[in-house]
This record gives sequence, C-alpha cells and structure tokens, in this order.
Amino acid sequence: MGRWEPGARQRLADAALGLFLERGYEATTVADIAARAGLTERTFFRQYSDKREVLFGDPIEYNAVFTDAVAAAPADASPLDAITAALRAAGKWFEGRHPYARRRAAVIDANPALQEREQVKRLHLTEAVAAALAGRGVSAATAALAAELATVSFHQAFARWVALGEESDLGELAVAVLAELRALAA
Amino acid sequence: MGRWEPGARQRLADAALGLFLERGYEATTVADIAARAGLTERTFFRQYSDKREVLFGDPIEYNAVFTDAVAAAPADASPLDAITAALRAAGKWFEGRHPYARRRAAVIDANPALQEREQVKRLHLTEAVAAALAGRGVSAATAALAAELATVSFHQAFARWVALGEESDLGELAVAVLAELRALAA
Repeated sequence: MGRWEPGARQRLADAALGLFLERGYEATTVADIAARAGLTERTFFRQYSDKREVLFGDPIEYNAVFTDAVAAAPADASPLDAITAALRAAGKWFEGRHPYARRRAAVIDANPALQEREQVKRLHLTEAVAAALAGRGVSAATAALAAELATVSFHQAFARWVALGEESDLGELAVAVLAELRALAA
Repeated sequence: MGRWEPGARQRLADAALGLFLERGYEATTVADIAARAGLTERTFFRQYSDKREVLFGDPIEYNAVFTDAVAAAPADASPLDAITAALRAAGKWFEGRHPYARRRAAVIDANPALQEREQVKRLHLTEAVAAALAGRGVSAATAALAAELATVSFHQAFARWVALGEESDLGELAVAVLAELRALAA
C-alpha cells in the first residue's frame, strides 16, 4: 500500500453502498465511488481489486471470527458445540452492524453478480471452518459436514436478521436455526 | 437458435473439457473450442454465453431432476423423505456419467472461476428444491433448511463419488451422507 490513507477502505465501502442504493450497482462506476469518498481511483484499486469487491471485507479477518472460536472451544467440545461457539462469536462480531447489513443486503439481493460473490464468501468460510474442526482432530468427512451445518445456520439466520426492522441477537438466531436443523434431522 | 446443429451443445462441451485438461482453462479460447468441435464461434455463442458456461448444463433440466422427485413424493412424505427421493433421482440421472464427471471435476477443482460458477449452480438448486418443498405445503423456513440438507448431502456425496476410481451408486452415497448429517445433528 502507498500513502497513508486513514479509513480509506471504509470510506470507499460507505460511498459505494450509498451509490449502489441510489443509482443501482450496474450504473455506478469506480470513478463515481472514489469521487464520492473524496479519494482517487488509484486509491480505490489499492484497496479493492474491482467494484464487486467493495462490499466484501477482508475474508481472512471474517473467517477468523468463526475459526478462532472453533479453535478456542474446550478440548472435549463436540463438533456441534464448537460450531455453536462460532455462531455466537459471529453474532457478537456483527453487533451494531445491523443498519449497514440491511443496506448491504438490499444491494446484494438485487444483483446476481453480488449474490454470486456472496456464495463464494460462504464457500470459503465453510472450508475455513472445516479446516479449524479438522485441526481439533475431527475427521475430514465429519468436519466438512459440521462446517456446512454452521454456515447453513449462519446464513439462514443472517437472512432473517436483516429482514427484521430492529437489531436482534444474531448469534442466538443462528443457534436457534441450528436447533431447527437438528429437529428437522431428528 | 439458427441452423440445425445436431449435438452441437455436447460436442462443444466435450471439446472444451478435452482442451481444458490438455492446455488449462485460462489458455483455452472459445475459438479453440469451436475449432476442436468442428463448429464456428458463432455456433458456440448460440449455445453458451461464454467459455465458463460450457461445463454447465441447462439449469432448468438439472434442477428438475431434484424438484420433480420432491413433487412426486407421496402426500404424506416428510420433507426428509421428499429430499431422500430427490437424492436417489439425482443419483439415477448421473448413472454412466462418472468418467465425464471425474474429468470435469478435475478442471473445476483447478479453477477458482469455475468453482465460483459451481457454487452458484448449487445456490440455484437449493432455491429450486426449497420452492418444490414449499409447493408441498412445507413452511418457507423449514423448506429452506431441508433444501440445504439436500444440497449439502448431494455435493458432499458428489465429491466422494468423483474421487473414486470406479463408478458407484451416487444416490446411495448421497443418502448415506444425509444419514451422517442426521447422526451428527442428533
């Protein structure tokens, strides 16, 4: 990264989200986003590879919210206990982000290219959680399935969370979805 | 569609798969694929919107393999029974396709753009199965979760199936993965 640009990343994301909601995703250019944020296009491309990326944070930081919780679960915790801890940690991480998440979801739901990118984010999260479970000695097959249960629960809960007008506890919603999945499978 | 081009779609897919395996996905052009298939680029673009699409069949036909089975399940079948029927129907549809599926999986596993496209295919399948379950009177929330169980089971089973040197019963593998998921959730 070049010059020190305090908060450039978040300023660009906020500017992009505003423009996407006002004008639509397709009609907004990187130049528009940079101008709205009071930054240059060059700065944009130091932060994000393209327009689509601006609504997606750092995947390493995001995945670590879940995987750190899996790794930190007690040694005798089952795979389900470990993913339950991850769902609660993720809920905590999203505290206070409900207004942004609602606006972001409105843009993503309206754009197939962004839905596609969101799915890829989920795939990488599932792989990261499976690796974290395997790191606890869980077999690869069980780790893969437990990780899928974690991301299915989280994403269903997230969809319900952003549909609500007021912020509720996302972690508890996710744990409740996991319980629904368990009841369905029983 | 213009002139009658018997089997053009499959010839292009076979040519593309061969070239992707020999030269790599990035190094292969649409012109290369058309030439190998003995067809024109214009014919290619009548069949597929771009190079990435050539390894992905008709989503309506593919999703219908699952959704027709869900719709055809007995009136008193539970959501899990209905998705079990869908997994068996999908296994039947893939009978004899193991050699092609293995070659295709090798190309997809090596290319992030194709993995991304595969994820989108899975998303659309999940949505289609959820809609089919809702059509049976299952609540939207339960339909969404049961559909996720179906596609998680199918995709995990598919990964195991293509990893095997010889063709085995994909439907039974998928039903076994669903049973593993149920045991994990118990």
